[in-house]
Amino acid sequence: MSLRRFLVAPGDLAEETVQLDKTEANHARKVLRLGVGDRVQLLDGRGKRAEAEILQLGREGMTCKVLRIEDAEPLQPRLVLCPGLAKGPAMDLIAVKLTELAVDQIRPFMARRSEPKIKDAGARLDRWQRLAGQALKQCGAPRTPEFFEPVDFADLLESAPENAAKIMLYERHEGMSLARALADTGRAGEVWLIIGPEGGFDDSEVALAQNAGFTLCGLPGTILRAETACLAAASIVRFAL
Amino acid sequence: MSLRRFLVAPGDLAEETVQLDKTEANHARKVLRLGVGDRVQLLDGRGKRAEAEILQLGREGMTCKVLRIEDAEPLQPRLVLCPGLAKGPAMDLIAVKLTELAVDQIRPFMARRSEPKIKDAGARLDRWQRLAGQALKQCGAPRTPEFFEPVDFADLLESAPENAAKIMLYERHEGMSLARALADTGRAGEVWLIIGPEGGFDDSEVALAQNAGFTLCGLPGTILRAETACLAAASIVRFAL
Repeated sequence: MSLRRFLVAPGDLAEETVQLDKTEANHARKVLRLGVGDRVQLLDGRGKRAEAEILQLGREGMTCKVLRIEDAEPLQPRLVLCPGLAKGPAMDLIAVKLTELAVDQIRPFMARRSEPKIKDAGARLDRWQRLAGQALKQCGAPRTPEFFEPVDFADLLESAPENAAKIMLYERHEGMSLARALADTGRAGEVWLIIGPEGGFDDSEVALAQNAGFTLCGLPGTILRAETACLAAASIVRFAL
Repeated sequence: MSLRRFLVAPGDLAEETVQLDKTEANHARKVLRLGVGDRVQLLDGRGKRAEAEILQLGREGMTCKVLRIEDAEPLQPRLVLCPGLAKGPAMDLIAVKLTELAVDQIRPFMARRSEPKIKDAGARLDRWQRLAGQALKQCGAPRTPEFFEPVDFADLLESAPENAAKIMLYERHEGMSLARALADTGRAGEVWLIIGPEGGFDDSEVALAQNAGFTLCGLPGTILRAETACLAAASIVRFAL
């Protein structure tokens, strides 16, 4: 049986002993029935995984001694997924599933026809990061994605670096398939993938993206919800390139 | 704006007029604000899509006149996905998302280490079929998958036809990747994909599957929950082959 996993802050694994808080300690004692001397796995969400031993465990916290650390290599290419801001449950699903699929950055954006407008961006970011952390504990992936505050579409386009492979999924595009466009990215170190909002893009936004160097492509034969398109695209990059 | 979609029973589209029940009629009137003369789309979940006009709409039901029908070609290859029976929310996600991804059949199974045991198989099948129908109305896909009652693993293996391409995802398998195994299926008309339960398979089950002609393969570099592996595998078959 694999070790029980706990999430620690980035930086915590630099020390020989790591302190976990009350909530984690109670989860360890009462739910997982762990005790002093048991081995656990500590994840920092930034690629470091440590095997550790519980030195002390009580109501107020838990102290673990780090036995050995491994630093997982990031997967290639770096994958930056840019979903049109969707409703709460769809964004939650994106946060969880794209963590499992080892997406490096999630940069939501608002287009003209985006339905939800962001109200409290800070709270949303905290929520996505927390869900990603829970996903990490369940699936054992080495990293959570880095989440960005939703920005306007034009600002998103400007953030994409010159040398990244840039692809935009566009539901009305019958030409190149996503699989083909991804195969064409060749050895780019970083792939940016834009997935439109449920309402789609208007023509001026499509032109703007093309001017910014994005290649349009479609997912022929089926009609996916935006969040499913995110999962499908990430799956293809991670397993079929 | 695309037409509002309604689900009808297979066979209903054989007639010139189609009768929809009270629930659909109330949804049309009160939520969608439709009225006599409006155009709608009728889906039978078996590949037929009709454009229709509302002839009559009241408290008790709705009558539509079929204007034209198209019959969507099934996608190739036929895709039969066999997930280890998972907990309720994971199976619900599978039912919805595999509808969008145009999976043809979903055949859940119980392995030795499967955690949930099925209690009321009929009720679960009804629920999955209902969720798939809702997904169809949202995404406009032409078909819902055909759902099968969960069976024991050995029985599942026996149901796979001789000439199908047979692949089993196995988390401890480091050798061939899923993308490679799928590419090797060549021009098989039907692909069977087994995705293990959260608890994994035991060695005797792995041997049984290999004897039944299944190729083992892994999803290297990441650790997916079972339901995410289902979505990833279906995405690769549908978009990257």
